[in-house]
Amino acid sequence: MTADSSSSTATSPPPVLPEPEEDLPEKSGLLADRDAIRQAHEQTVGQRPGTLVVREDALPPRLFLISYAENFYQEKEYADYTVLLAYFRAHPEIKHWIDVRGYNNLPLMQLLQEDFQIHPLMMEDVLGDYQRAKVEETEHGLFMVSRMTEFTRLLDIEDDQLSIFTGDNYVLTFQDDYVDCLDPVRQRLRSGRSSIRRRQPLYLAYALTDVVLDHYYPTMAAIGDYIEKLEERIFLGRSDRRLLNRILHIKKDIVRFRRLVYPEREKIAEILRMPEEVVPEEIKTYFKDCYDHAIQAMDLAESYRESVSSLVDLFLSDQSNRMNEVMKVLTIISSIFIPLSFVVGLYGMNFQREAPDGSINHLNMPELYSPWGYPVLLAILGIIVMFQLIYFYRKGWLTNR
Amino acid sequence: MTADSSSSTATSPPPVLPEPEEDLPEKSGLLADRDAIRQAHEQTVGQRPGTLVVREDALPPRLFLISYAENFYQEKEYADYTVLLAYFRAHPEIKHWIDVRGYNNLPLMQLLQEDFQIHPLMMEDVLGDYQRAKVEETEHGLFMVSRMTEFTRLLDIEDDQLSIFTGDNYVLTFQDDYVDCLDPVRQRLRSGRSSIRRRQPLYLAYALTDVVLDHYYPTMAAIGDYIEKLEERIFLGRSDRRLLNRILHIKKDIVRFRRLVYPEREKIAEILRMPEEVVPEEIKTYFKDCYDHAIQAMDLAESYRESVSSLVDLFLSDQSNRMNEVMKVLTIISSIFIPLSFVVGLYGMNFQREAPDGSINHLNMPELYSPWGYPVLLAILGIIVMFQLIYFYRKGWLTNR
Amino acid sequence: MTADSSSSTATSPPPVLPEPEEDLPEKSGLLADRDAIRQAHEQTVGQRPGTLVVREDALPPRLFLISYAENFYQEKEYADYTVLLAYFRAHPEIKHWIDVRGYNNLPLMQLLQEDFQIHPLMMEDVLGDYQRAKVEETEHGLFMVSRMTEFTRLLDIEDDQLSIFTGDNYVLTFQDDYVDCLDPVRQRLRSGRSSIRRRQPLYLAYALTDVVLDHYYPTMAAIGDYIEKLEERIFLGRSDRRLLNRILHIKKDIVRFRRLVYPEREKIAEILRMPEEVVPEEIKTYFKDCYDHAIQAMDLAESYRESVSSLVDLFLSDQSNRMNEVMKVLTIISSIFIPLSFVVGLYGMNFQREAPDGSINHLNMPELYSPWGYPVLLAILGIIVMFQLIYFYRKGWLTNR
Amino acid sequence: MTADSSSSTATSPPPVLPEPEEDLPEKSGLLADRDAIRQAHEQTVGQRPGTLVVREDALPPRLFLISYAENFYQEKEYADYTVLLAYFRAHPEIKHWIDVRGYNNLPLMQLLQEDFQIHPLMMEDVLGDYQRAKVEETEHGLFMVSRMTEFTRLLDIEDDQLSIFTGDNYVLTFQDDYVDCLDPVRQRLRSGRSSIRRRQPLYLAYALTDVVLDHYYPTMAAIGDYIEKLEERIFLGRSDRRLLNRILHIKKDIVRFRRLVYPEREKIAEILRMPEEVVPEEIKTYFKDCYDHAIQAMDLAESYRESVSSLVDLFLSDQSNRMNEVMKVLTIISSIFIPLSFVVGLYGMNFQREAPDGSINHLNMPELYSPWGYPVLLAILGIIVMFQLIYFYRKGWLTNR
Amino acid sequence: MTADSSSSTATSPPPVLPEPEEDLPEKSGLLADRDAIRQAHEQTVGQRPGTLVVREDALPPRLFLISYAENFYQEKEYADYTVLLAYFRAHPEIKHWIDVRGYNNLPLMQLLQEDFQIHPLMMEDVLGDYQRAKVEETEHGLFMVSRMTEFTRLLDIEDDQLSIFTGDNYVLTFQDDYVDCLDPVRQRLRSGRSSIRRRQPLYLAYALTDVVLDHYYPTMAAIGDYIEKLEERIFLGRSDRRLLNRILHIKKDIVRFRRLVYPEREKIAEILRMPEEVVPEEIKTYFKDCYDHAIQAMDLAESYRESVSSLVDLFLSDQSNRMNEVMKVLTIISSIFIPLSFVVGLYGMNFQREAPDGSINHLNMPELYSPWGYPVLLAILGIIVMFQLIYFYRKGWLTNR
Repeated sequence: MTADSSSSTATSPPPVLPEPEEDLPEKSGLLADRDAIRQAHEQTVGQRPGTLVVREDALPPRLFLISYAENFYQEKEYADYTVLLAYFRAHPEIKHWIDVRGYNNLPLMQLLQEDFQIHPLMMEDVLGDYQRAKVEETEHGLFMVSRMTEFTRLLDIEDDQLSIFTGDNYVLTFQDDYVDCLDPVRQRLRSGRSSIRRRQPLYLAYALTDVVLDHYYPTMAAIGDYIEKLEERIFLGRSDRRLLNRILHIKKDIVRFRRLVYPEREKIAEILRMPEEVVPEEIKTYFKDCYDHAIQAMDLAESYRESVSSLVDLFLSDQSNRMNEVMKVLTIISSIFIPLSFVVGLYGMNFQREAPDGSINHLNMPELYSPWGYPVLLAILGIIVMFQLIYFYRKGWLTNR
Repeated sequence: MTADSSSSTATSPPPVLPEPEEDLPEKSGLLADRDAIRQAHEQTVGQRPGTLVVREDALPPRLFLISYAENFYQEKEYADYTVLLAYFRAHPEIKHWIDVRGYNNLPLMQLLQEDFQIHPLMMEDVLGDYQRAKVEETEHGLFMVSRMTEFTRLLDIEDDQLSIFTGDNYVLTFQDDYVDCLDPVRQRLRSGRSSIRRRQPLYLAYALTDVVLDHYYPTMAAIGDYIEKLEERIFLGRSDRRLLNRILHIKKDIVRFRRLVYPEREKIAEILRMPEEVVPEEIKTYFKDCYDHAIQAMDLAESYRESVSSLVDLFLSDQSNRMNEVMKVLTIISSIFIPLSFVVGLYGMNFQREAPDGSINHLNMPELYSPWGYPVLLAILGIIVMFQLIYFYRKGWLTNR
Repeated sequence: MTADSSSSTATSPPPVLPEPEEDLPEKSGLLADRDAIRQAHEQTVGQRPGTLVVREDALPPRLFLISYAENFYQEKEYADYTVLLAYFRAHPEIKHWIDVRGYNNLPLMQLLQEDFQIHPLMMEDVLGDYQRAKVEETEHGLFMVSRMTEFTRLLDIEDDQLSIFTGDNYVLTFQDDYVDCLDPVRQRLRSGRSSIRRRQPLYLAYALTDVVLDHYYPTMAAIGDYIEKLEERIFLGRSDRRLLNRILHIKKDIVRFRRLVYPEREKIAEILRMPEEVVPEEIKTYFKDCYDHAIQAMDLAESYRESVSSLVDLFLSDQSNRMNEVMKVLTIISSIFIPLSFVVGLYGMNFQREAPDGSINHLNMPELYSPWGYPVLLAILGIIVMFQLIYFYRKGWLTNR
Repeated sequence: MTADSSSSTATSPPPVLPEPEEDLPEKSGLLADRDAIRQAHEQTVGQRPGTLVVREDALPPRLFLISYAENFYQEKEYADYTVLLAYFRAHPEIKHWIDVRGYNNLPLMQLLQEDFQIHPLMMEDVLGDYQRAKVEETEHGLFMVSRMTEFTRLLDIEDDQLSIFTGDNYVLTFQDDYVDCLDPVRQRLRSGRSSIRRRQPLYLAYALTDVVLDHYYPTMAAIGDYIEKLEERIFLGRSDRRLLNRILHIKKDIVRFRRLVYPEREKIAEILRMPEEVVPEEIKTYFKDCYDHAIQAMDLAESYRESVSSLVDLFLSDQSNRMNEVMKVLTIISSIFIPLSFVVGLYGMNFQREAPDGSINHLNMPELYSPWGYPVLLAILGIIVMFQLIYFYRKGWLTNR
Repeated sequence: MTADSSSSTATSPPPVLPEPEEDLPEKSGLLADRDAIRQAHEQTVGQRPGTLVVREDALPPRLFLISYAENFYQEKEYADYTVLLAYFRAHPEIKHWIDVRGYNNLPLMQLLQEDFQIHPLMMEDVLGDYQRAKVEETEHGLFMVSRMTEFTRLLDIEDDQLSIFTGDNYVLTFQDDYVDCLDPVRQRLRSGRSSIRRRQPLYLAYALTDVVLDHYYPTMAAIGDYIEKLEERIFLGRSDRRLLNRILHIKKDIVRFRRLVYPEREKIAEILRMPEEVVPEEIKTYFKDCYDHAIQAMDLAESYRESVSSLVDLFLSDQSNRMNEVMKVLTIISSIFIPLSFVVGLYGMNFQREAPDGSINHLNMPELYSPWGYPVLLAILGIIVMFQLIYFYRKGWLTNR
């Protein structure tokens, strides 16, 4: 029994998310997911349907074979596909999980397609690398697509495709990455007690689907934590534009997440509707559980969406509030000093006590000549200020409200 | 007939809700409900489905047995499960309600699962402690999940799970809290007149579902009262940011409440669609009544949501309105005094009557030398102010509108 | 043939609606309808289902019996229920409408329940006084709930419940108010020509349902008139906060109205789906007409909702517009006078022509000594003002736009 | 063959729509369509269903009979209904279109109802003059209601009802107006080549329905043109309140239009579902075409709604933008002149060089006595202004952005 | 084998999109798509259904015939239709694609209609040039309409109609443009290896439908790129009105795109529901793939719509933000200088030390005579400014936040 080291790669640790204030190379924050769907299609525009095309940046394939039975377990990476196939064909009495990671070897892919009698269109879905979650019946069992999510340091949801084919005594999976979230299933297989070993391959397919679904929760948890961080920032009054940008970015992530989970739910619902001979009732019970999880993931996403909407409301209200505050400062200062300026301007006028003809104009600003003129004026100014301050205090403009 | 004291715990009184101005430890107001769903899942990521895991902070279980028949009633807390089981097995002719409160004893839970032949996935739902309301058929009867709501002092909706299994002569319930909202049913059982005693256990399950649904109304009532309080504050003009925060918090509560009630409605609708041999027509009549209540709870929630939306509109309009008011004060004061300042500045200019060559510049501000210069100027200033005040009054800026 | 005076109470005249400026005791404008649903439930929390409870503020019952056949009509109020029942039982060959107004007599209600074999849950719906419109089959015919609306002086939609039971030769109705909107049906019954007299009691039930639906139009008309009034006020520029409050209040009314009518439509749709032996085709033709009316009422409500949304838009745009206007006044006055003030301030400086050493500083403000200094300055100021006015006029700030 | 002159009335030309700046008697712009539905109902509140009531302002009826067969065509207005009926009954071998315009003659309407065996409720729908588009089966064929739209000079959508009854050899139509949009069908009938002449009356009914649907496009075209006009005005910066009002008015029109077309689509869908013996497959092909048209009309309405929403966004952004501009002018002027005013105010202070004791205060504003004081100050002021202008230019406040 | 040069026209290169700042002749940006639907209908108002009308600006038809079999390929443009038809009829054993580009020859169109037995209503759909994507069964096979999209330099989505008729051994397509997006299919046909050659004509129809759907992705890619460009502009702070206009324009495009794709999806769903004898299972597998593509196109459109909504939010927040900034500048400058102006105004007052009677008013502004008066005052002013700057700095108004 060979436990290959590469397959024991631990599940990648949660990413260190950037602080909301941090600079990110977010050239195209709002559109980052555009490329996935588009690229998948641009390469195949006008191609004959079912033509296999491999993305240039795909990884070269690595082949793993896990062979298991109730009392048997063997796990091995094969460099040579023919050796793997030979072993697989030589042992029809036990169950096999052929785990293909990386696509970048077209002839190998075509061999796989022929040996496992995969419909060209399905193989195209596998390699195209962007296909919503779905399930289809094949001659040998089911063809299922799941999407595995990862929340990245750039605050994007990255999703990799897991394509699963089931047969009488095998499960064949394809994915483009060497690291995945399926290790818990491998661990359970290794430990002898797992019921996966006893049951038919379809149950392994279920276990893989379930672990992918379970992996949605850490993604959502990371998003939830980030929302909390953003909320905190807003409460600290740091409502700058970058914050709004991040909020909208997270909102988009959530919307996208929902669009990922929704077909997952539909896929499972379709499995539940399949006839007994394709999916036995006993396995359906387990998929029913998956179905509940998918609905709860959508509930959670919905709840986050509501939270993010509230954040946007808070942000906008804050922006308007700060404008209000700016205006208040201006208004208080202007309202106090503009009238005072008028009064002192008044006594800066040059009306002459003495007319050109030497007579005295007793009405021309006699205050200026009174011995108490200046102190009385200062007192009056002080009283004006006092009244204004009382007025503003009553309006609540001097306090923080 | 032993009336156990602990089971007569009165329904918890309504919480003393905080005033909208009060400080709360609302670190994560908008996301408070995140943890429930997430924690439930984080513990089980990659677990074998049906593996029983108990949350670490769960309470140790207490076991209550209510045995009843038309003319018999006995209520007792058992410290030892085997004694309870022995009594239960010894009296198949009467009906039993086994009431398990607290989960934190995994071996006991496994015993219960085996003795009552509960499917592992259902037991996982029971212990996972976060499961939307649902109903499933079992070999012995039904498995129902209800969610019991409570509106807390922190303005959150807390919800506990009530899991109900029915059998031929028993109802088995699980919940994680010692205090619940089911006492009215216990009271009815104690009093001899209740029809629960006469009917099959499914009717008791109905009664429990009904009392949970009935308990939604006090929750909604508390929310309704709080909305009214918030509305009052807005009308008093106290539209500060904390108020908006509270409004958004309540809005989230209502949205969450709807998401709790909606599956409840679906659950009952599914019961109503079940065949006669699983749920007899006579019991369905009662569930139909439940169905009406669930719809009315959603109507009420919808109505509150509308009210809260209107509150947000009012809040924002208020914010804009206060800005308007600030601007008006600034504009009135500036508009009155800035022109006056110009005029008095005009007469503060030093244009000289006497040219350097001694000649008289008769055109240079002769007003300054006129005996009536100053009084006339004051009069003119007064008239300017008067006209401005009339203008502003006509615009309605001096009144509160 | 006895025409009882009390039953000829005229339909209540339309309420005198308050002017939008009027003060109302609108303590809880947005939540006024909360109490109906809540109270209905708070009293019955944890009650045994089917337990009859009567609201304390309910009116004592009055009993009316209208007995009719093609050539016979008798209308009478009975103080004693047993007399009524005796008469009813003694004349099975003619049709009867037993019209119970007010519930506040529990024993009487129980008698009615027994004599007419009403299911306890239905009786609970009758007395609970808050039940969405619905229809259910009974052993004797149908049980229908309608909601009669009234638009009150406080701008609320008040709705009373009309519960209708049909039997082979009777219609039994319950309502909590002495005054209702059913008089047109009574009038038609009194006049000999009505087809109600000839047809089965179900047709009378239809006629009652129809008159309730018809009564929705005056309610909507009152709301429509009020919307028009609010619109007029906005056009007069009176967009104060109370107006917004009224708009939101009416919006809530309309939303509520829709929630009242929607189940009415569903109820009728369910009647139309009932089998021929429960509701004959001939009667269905009439209910089909009702169905059209319900849809049209919803159309109307939808149309009003659109209008009210537009009002809110107008209101907010108005608020922003008035801010704009305030700012324009400030800007025009400041922009004109602040530069002028600078200029006159310039010539108020005390730069001395004569240096301390007695020499002449020819560069120090020679303008002050020029004979034309002052008039030229005034002219310059005038020109500055003129240019500014032209600029503002071109911007359209001086006109009302 | 008599071509009656009155029936050749040309389709009314498109209305001359008001310029957006024009004054209209738009007392109740947002509610103008309220009256149609309401009036239709207010008259019949509490009426016996099926009671014929004619609106008081209805026109007196004019009766037209178009008789046609493959090789025969006759068109005539009859003053006397009995003559028409006699002719109709005397020629059962050819097809007839009885075209009733105007209702205001109750006895005549009752005669028609009896002679053509119309159900009282359908006749009520005909005369009530407000009935959503619908179709019902009758004993003789179909009863269809279409709504003919017209976009009026007051920017309202006026809709008239066209009620169509089909029989074995006749089509009976009712409408309240003398002028309609059906002339194209009449023209096609007159010209011998039309397939209407050859086919059964249901095909004529189809042709009428189709021409009504076709007439929706000019209405939409008028609305589209008006939207374009409004858009142009916004682009010219004329975003006054009247413009918003017009935009909201048009928005309401579009919403209303959708509500008119939607039942039309449902009506046709119902016709398509009718059994072969009621509507033959061959005719259904034509109605399928109608169905496409109805969907396209709704698409168009949806597209306009989107455009109008964008207009509202543009309007509001404009309003905010203009505020921005006002503020910029204020800020530029204030920011430039307020500091300058301070400086010149500084040198307007009266600090004395000569102390009361005759000593010289060399520190008291020596600038005032310097020979270059004034020119240097002016230069400094100029530099301040220059820097500010550069700052504002860099901010982009001096250009139009 | 003749490869006609005109049919090898390369797919038109992607348009050079205008910079967001560029001026476009966008007279009717928001309504540009109005004309398509309207014009299609205005010409046919009141026409006999099935009357063929050709748009005046349509192109004169060019006829291409591609004849193919597994080992045969011939491609030719025919100037004379009768020659084409003769060839087509003479070779029933091979498959033909009759490719009609341009409609402007009514007699030719009528010939085609007769020769290929096309239902008049379908021919009307073909020539009307505006028909949502749809599929209908004909006597010979299917009639499908697809819409080919193109994103133009004016930022509009232009869509041309591709009408496809299938028969036993032919595919007949109509379009109004000489250049199209079908060249990839032609290339595949030319190369001998294509499976199109081997299969029935329906597969060619599928290939055409698929290539049209594939062509949606470049359109979406162009829109996506433009959104990114707009986003970049907003981030550079260039939020002028034209930018908003462009954003709304793109939003409209996306909404329109969805309305184009949605019927496409429905069309394919309908094909998938067709019976085996019309569309064989083998072909359905391919259409299923199309279906996935259509759903993904809608997902992508949905994702873009979300992005554009976020752009609008950003834009509006930006607008409000810039207002905030303007206000801050005003407030900082006013708040600093207005109090200073007051102080210097104070010392510009002319209160006289010497009273008219020659006595000394020691209280009248003694500061003016103090030797340190001026320097102390300047120091005080400096301190005031300093404190204000500290206050503003703490508020964060001096930094860019």
